[in-house]
Amino acid sequence: MSLKTKFIFKPIGIIHSPYKEPSGTPIQTIYSDNAIATVEIFDEFTEGLDDIEKFSHIYLIYVFDRSHRFELKIKPFLDNKTHGVFTTRAPNRPNPIGLSIVRLINRKKNILTIKEIDIFDKTPLLDIKPFIPFWDNRMKVKTGWLTEKMKKTKKYFSDNRFK
Amino acid sequence: MSLKTKFIFKPIGIIHSPYKEPSGTPIQTIYSDNAIATVEIFDEFTEGLDDIEKFSHIYLIYVFDRSHRFELKIKPFLDNKTHGVFTTRAPNRPNPIGLSIVRLINRKKNILTIKEIDIFDKTPLLDIKPFIPFWDNRMKVKTGWLTEKMKKTKKYFSDNRFK
Repeated sequence: MSLKTKFIFKPIGIIHSPYKEPSGTPIQTIYSDNAIATVEIFDEFTEGLDDIEKFSHIYLIYVFDRSHRFELKIKPFLDNKTHGVFTTRAPNRPNPIGLSIVRLINRKKNILTIKEIDIFDKTPLLDIKPFIPFWDNRMKVKTGWLTEKMKKTKKYFSDNRFK
Repeated sequence: MSLKTKFIFKPIGIIHSPYKEPSGTPIQTIYSDNAIATVEIFDEFTEGLDDIEKFSHIYLIYVFDRSHRFELKIKPFLDNKTHGVFTTRAPNRPNPIGLSIVRLINRKKNILTIKEIDIFDKTPLLDIKPFIPFWDNRMKVKTGWLTEKMKKTKKYFSDNRFK
């Protein structure tokens, strides 16, 4: 394997969201208002959703499809100093893959209704995984440059810096 | 966008792990023993790691590159009944993308030493993101079919069912 290896992924669905542009979009799902989004799963994958309505929280793995460049040192939303891109959640990354933990409200056939979202409208979805607190919560964690920023900032929304 | 849309990702590095095969590999990072792995980031991306050593936990997003098929209803490790693949973490998924929260021990240039791993040797890495408890922990969660299984099972390790 080398840098030249390529992996090809195809969307399993589309996320339909009220957030149409960076400005005003929450930077993390916990900063979301009461906005509702829907996840449309393509028909051929619907069977893979069986019993998902019994889960309240799911990971969505998706493509930052409006990201077309990246820098290794960037100014993330929460700071005006540069940081290594892998210490941030910025969308402009070497592989523009997004990860969000969202709340599942209900399911009707191939449509999931979700809340607690930070995702743009028409985002291509790659995968869904169940969120399991016993596996996924961590308590004693060091959070680097974000530690102080999380205490002080009120800046919860995106701007246009990654356009 | 449709099913025919393709997204191409290239590895940013390789995960070197003592787990060479499914048998004996933990099914989630919390079941890991004291095994140590290293993440080798390709030189061209090393700058993106700046200050990552100040974080104790990171998400790794990677390719289940030994998965070459999928089924929408599968028997996951923790059950002998079938479940929708999107309610499981099974490696055989429409897009074989893996997600692990691991503990970062140290960094030397482009090499990260990590613990709490559930990843095969020579796995292609796509992305690293910081784990931030305030953003990523969830407390009141419904976990569907996994709820009862988590209480009763002692089966923490992989077998060959997804080979």
